[in-house]
Amino acid sequence: MSTVDVPVALLGYGTVGSAVDRLLRENADEIERAIGHRLRVVRALVRDPARERGFWPEPGVLTTDFAAIRDDPQVAVVAEVMGGLEPAGPYVLELLRAGKPVVSANKQLVARRGAELFAAASAAGVQLRFEASVCAAIPVIKVLRESLVVTNVHRVLGIVNGTTNFILTEMEGGRSYAEALAEAQRLGYAEADPTDDVTGADAAAKMAILATVAFGSRVTPEEVDAVGIEEVSLAHHEAARELEMAVRLVGSATLVDGRLDVRVRPSLVDRHHPLAAVEGPFNAVMLQGDAIREITLEGPGAGGVETASAVVADMVSVIGTTGNGFLQNDACWRTLERLPPGEFRSPFYAHFEVDDRPGVLAHVAKRLAAHEVSVARLIQVPTDAGAALHVVLHEAPEGQVKAALAEIAALPEAHARPTVLPVVSDRGVAGLGWR
Amino acid sequence: MSTVDVPVALLGYGTVGSAVDRLLRENADEIERAIGHRLRVVRALVRDPARERGFWPEPGVLTTDFAAIRDDPQVAVVAEVMGGLEPAGPYVLELLRAGKPVVSANKQLVARRGAELFAAASAAGVQLRFEASVCAAIPVIKVLRESLVVTNVHRVLGIVNGTTNFILTEMEGGRSYAEALAEAQRLGYAEADPTDDVTGADAAAKMAILATVAFGSRVTPEEVDAVGIEEVSLAHHEAARELEMAVRLVGSATLVDGRLDVRVRPSLVDRHHPLAAVEGPFNAVMLQGDAIREITLEGPGAGGVETASAVVADMVSVIGTTGNGFLQNDACWRTLERLPPGEFRSPFYAHFEVDDRPGVLAHVAKRLAAHEVSVARLIQVPTDAGAALHVVLHEAPEGQVKAALAEIAALPEAHARPTVLPVVSDRGVAGLGWR
Repeated sequence: MSTVDVPVALLGYGTVGSAVDRLLRENADEIERAIGHRLRVVRALVRDPARERGFWPEPGVLTTDFAAIRDDPQVAVVAEVMGGLEPAGPYVLELLRAGKPVVSANKQLVARRGAELFAAASAAGVQLRFEASVCAAIPVIKVLRESLVVTNVHRVLGIVNGTTNFILTEMEGGRSYAEALAEAQRLGYAEADPTDDVTGADAAAKMAILATVAFGSRVTPEEVDAVGIEEVSLAHHEAARELEMAVRLVGSATLVDGRLDVRVRPSLVDRHHPLAAVEGPFNAVMLQGDAIREITLEGPGAGGVETASAVVADMVSVIGTTGNGFLQNDACWRTLERLPPGEFRSPFYAHFEVDDRPGVLAHVAKRLAAHEVSVARLIQVPTDAGAALHVVLHEAPEGQVKAALAEIAALPEAHARPTVLPVVSDRGVAGLGWR
Repeated sequence: MSTVDVPVALLGYGTVGSAVDRLLRENADEIERAIGHRLRVVRALVRDPARERGFWPEPGVLTTDFAAIRDDPQVAVVAEVMGGLEPAGPYVLELLRAGKPVVSANKQLVARRGAELFAAASAAGVQLRFEASVCAAIPVIKVLRESLVVTNVHRVLGIVNGTTNFILTEMEGGRSYAEALAEAQRLGYAEADPTDDVTGADAAAKMAILATVAFGSRVTPEEVDAVGIEEVSLAHHEAARELEMAVRLVGSATLVDGRLDVRVRPSLVDRHHPLAAVEGPFNAVMLQGDAIREITLEGPGAGGVETASAVVADMVSVIGTTGNGFLQNDACWRTLERLPPGEFRSPFYAHFEVDDRPGVLAHVAKRLAAHEVSVARLIQVPTDAGAALHVVLHEAPEGQVKAALAEIAALPEAHARPTVLPVVSDRGVAGLGWR
């Protein structure tokens, strides 16, 4: 054993944990070249050390004794790769309080218990890193915290759930929602119970973390206004194609005059926008700021070894910035007010099913105009029961758009509740090119 | 003045230098939150301190005396934002030898004098960072060095020149090369003398830096086999559209069985590939590695404030990792052999102009088959003088493809030299979807 070895520990030795151990062993030379030290797993907390495993740690590493990790003064950093809130949360708290830097891949833990954990890390003066908790190997947290320090990021747009992006991409090819979901399950992209993905809950937790880091104000998953993809129909995809757009589940975190809006919505994304090009189970995050205009990071948003790669990068960064390095623990330095949801401004797409007879269009247009909502593009197509109107509305506050739509829904000519989706297009809907 | 202020210095106070100073002043709080220190410009080397400037430094900061910077023990890091090889190169060398960490935005300097500079930095034990030398604010160097430590990156694909990407995107819209170039010059994306951009020389220097960092083996710009966009015609764009591809100037750095290939080529990029979605003067770099599959970073590839933002991020990173932090100076730890160019394997696109008479296609196909090159897709269109063949070839060594094409060019039915461009498509050309 080389004297430069830095002992590290894992909480959990499942798919991600064993991949972390393997990456640390296989890439010890690369790590030493980067930071001058080799990282070696000396303890890994598991429930059953005797269980059969695909990749085995060094003899004596597996333990059921959490205190053996917490109280080992040699352990320089601990990676929490067990998942769940209990007992991961109390374990991480205890480690931080004991002065151990922690790396966590646990989205729910970071999103829900972030305030408590970061307070403990700050009090103890140790790092808590969490790159792998959002978008696996895509290094969006490090880029936000270390590369975009002076760029005043004011908006984060993200496709942060690969399952729903796969389903929406499949629907572009003509599959129904049910068929696409079944295919996602068959390929292992969706769980047997896909609720967390398709309702937008998973995306909401990730957007909460991204908003917290980007804006320095704590955002919890419950505060994220999330709508999933369950109501997205092939008609939406057809309209999107007609309008040269694509349907994507887009999370957005926006700073508007010092107030914060964080939401997740199925959205129509302009074909020339980088997020429209994200296909299959991939993720992408676009960071918009004063000094950079925008930077987009794209990659696989899940996967055991991808996640493990981000965990290892964080462990390496902890060791590589010990001392007077980056302060990773004070992400929240202010408390921003929330923007009332109705004041959120965006271009929108609306879909109406109406009678096909004279005067209907005038009625619809009148209700929109009454709320100062103006039409950028309109496509009318005949349907079995009348006509479908696909309307792109110029940027307007969501409250006014919804008020107009409620009135339109109450018209005798309206067949069903109109649907409304935000449009993501920084060119302005009337423009000719995105850039 | 706060006691936590860290004095820093600039070489140059032009567009980038003054933007660095401004960003440091306007974002002092953000920087202090990130690393616990404020950075303050105390000296800036210029030729003429009296010259009118858009943004003025603090009184007494401008100096014509390089030694005043080099010999000031308080100056903790120096940003070289003057450009050019002379006197920037000797200055940076002197600073490193004097024990000063340096941040450079100077692509030519880093690409051409990298070996010497990094040796000096290593000898003195100080950092030399150079994020802004490639793709401005896109943090590809930091991501390669700090986030992808254990991912065994084996291929870097990049659109690293915004000028040519703008021109190619304009040509997609039907403009000729000359018209698109004129428009790029009008908008300030291309210089009056566009040689460095359109010949691929600028992209070659950036690919040399990226290959060096990704593979740890020194690559100089002269070693990069670069072809520019001057021969790209509207016919190539039309064929690309027909084949559901886009023409892009793609730099590639590939590790093939321990041997290195670095090149820049106009390429046909599959419409579903992330690089095909890069439009206008933007840049994107795709990093492919074992543990991450691929990560793509996209953003503006140029601009004064964008470049300054990357310079500041590097200065902050230097201060944030001082001590036992990331070793930024030993990027080159091995010397890789070069792959003989003819052995580089890729799918290719070839364009032939031939007589439109029986037997021609058979002759072409026979020559290809003789060199074990097989056809994936073929489109034949009539021309005034005969027929144009647009052929997508399955992956094959470039040498065999070129040998076949030379024979075809010598056929009596051939009108002109065939053109051949690599195809960028990780789906395999016969596949149905990119992912």
